[in-house]
Amino acid sequence: MSEKLAMILESGTTDKLMAASILAAGAAAMGKEVTVFLTFGGLNAFRKGAENAPMVMPDEFAGMEAQMAQIMQAKQVPHWLKNFKDAKEIGEVHLYACGATMDMFDLKKEDLEPLVEEVVGVATFIQKSEGAQTVFI
Amino acid sequence: MSEKLAMILESGTTDKLMAASILAAGAAAMGKEVTVFLTFGGLNAFRKGAENAPMVMPDEFAGMEAQMAQIMQAKQVPHWLKNFKDAKEIGEVHLYACGATMDMFDLKKEDLEPLVEEVVGVATFIQKSEGAQTVFI
Amino acid sequence: MSEKLAMILESGTTDKLMAASILAAGAAAMGKEVTVFLTFGGLNAFRKGAENAPMVMPDEFAGMEAQMAQIMQAKQVPHWLKNFKDAKEIGEVHLYACGATMDMFDLKKEDLEPLVEEVVGVATFIQKSEGAQTVFI
Repeated sequence: MSEKLAMILESGTTDKLMAASILAAGAAAMGKEVTVFLTFGGLNAFRKGAENAPMVMPDEFAGMEAQMAQIMQAKQVPHWLKNFKDAKEIGEVHLYACGATMDMFDLKKEDLEPLVEEVVGVATFIQKSEGAQTVFI
Repeated sequence: MSEKLAMILESGTTDKLMAASILAAGAAAMGKEVTVFLTFGGLNAFRKGAENAPMVMPDEFAGMEAQMAQIMQAKQVPHWLKNFKDAKEIGEVHLYACGATMDMFDLKKEDLEPLVEEVVGVATFIQKSEGAQTVFI
Repeated sequence: MSEKLAMILESGTTDKLMAASILAAGAAAMGKEVTVFLTFGGLNAFRKGAENAPMVMPDEFAGMEAQMAQIMQAKQVPHWLKNFKDAKEIGEVHLYACGATMDMFDLKKEDLEPLVEEVVGVATFIQKSEGAQTVFI
């Protein structure tokens, strides 16, 4: 049994962030170590103030942002950032920012949500994901 | 050798549904146990009548829906739902619906294609995917 | 420790191609065997002349193609095709084209970048990915 889950979170649409956060929280609750590598759109979504950023829907729900926001409010679906926070409180969950993306977007560590622990390169992530079930989101 | 393939099918664009169905059928034909967790767009695509729903293309093929539909008809490419049906006949393939998505979209089990066996939570999927090669689509 | 990384590269947006190429190069540099299965949009992106094809951004960066191209030029970010070339020089990296996609798009092997070694079916890819960390991009 794999005790580790690793994810490369590359997409910044709300549905993917939500799926990643629920998966991270679920795995953490089951005692797995979770390593998240935030890159490109996934990292961009973790800029400070993430909780107030507008929703972005993928192709098959294009133009349905307002409707989705309404549903999620009515159903009291927690924000994906809240899920990641909970995941870190429940278990061993680590979030890393991709160094190359930081450089490309001229981002500094203090521009990101404090949930993000460290800026690392892809080699470090590959090492940390050894023996893990690894998903690309 | 891993005897199991697990997939989280989160996307509802036609190309991703097609890729997932071909992968499921291929793995089943090679004797692997396949577990599919349908969530968000991936689950939405399994509403009853899936075979007659319009195609949705991803960004890099935006606006090419009609052309793609024509090609697939000319080449007699089977519908992705047909591939999943075949996969279940060939081998051990299980499709589960994500409970949180069901609730969010106010879906009931009977609203879905009968291919979907059961509504489960993310914890159940994580358990079922133990030891599996796991992909997020 | 898994000595192998396998990826199904299905998406053809520039960010996903870039992420896949960096992951392939990173894994190759760390001594892993890398197997890439190019399908649908991912294969379409490997048509000859890939280096001069226009950028395609995903939903959350829609309309930002020109700005991204400018940033990547200013930061001297290498083209994803260059990364794959480097990956092949560094280590054991194999790129395969999906036979079903070749047929659907009426593509011949000579229509593709020479980096692509062979046209194979999904069963061959599944065999080659045995025991690998497998990601779907």
